[in-house]
Amino acid sequence: MHILLIYDISEDKIRNKVAEACKDFGLKRIQWSAFLGQLNHNRREELMMRISKLLGDNEGNIRLYPICSKDIKLVHEINRV
Amino acid sequence: MHILLIYDISEDKIRNKVAEACKDFGLKRIQWSAFLGQLNHNRREELMMRISKLLGDNEGNIRLYPICSKDIKLVHEINRV
Repeated sequence: MHILLIYDISEDKIRNKVAEACKDFGLKRIQWSAFLGQLNHNRREELMMRISKLLGDNEGNIRLYPICSKDIKLVHEINRV
Repeated sequence: MHILLIYDISEDKIRNKVAEACKDFGLKRIQWSAFLGQLNHNRREELMMRISKLLGDNEGNIRLYPICSKDIKLVHEINRV
């Protein structure tokens, strides 16, 4: 299943570690604090447990949205570089 | 339908205007650059047209993900304040 993972993490070091964890799980960075990829249920749980440990007691909000293949095709993007 | 709108916009003034546009469309800010809410197809198109105008030729990436009611329940969140 597709997943979209977004985060607000104030501590730079932790934010970088969370980004590395997302890459380790094969996710692709689509925005500064957003990763997209495909993970099954177990791998989603595993990733969130790893992120939870990385965050510890520090401030942060992390959200992982599973998105089905029908909905992922409806994404609307504006991209100007 | 639920929608998740995320953005990377470097220009502060434009980023703030895009955030205001999201609030005007009844979306709720869930992270610094992420809004969540419910919009039908026409309203999604309208919002993205407004954002496109606000962005003009400036650099930015905006993504609007429709998420069905089944998937929205599967969101996994870590929130530490």
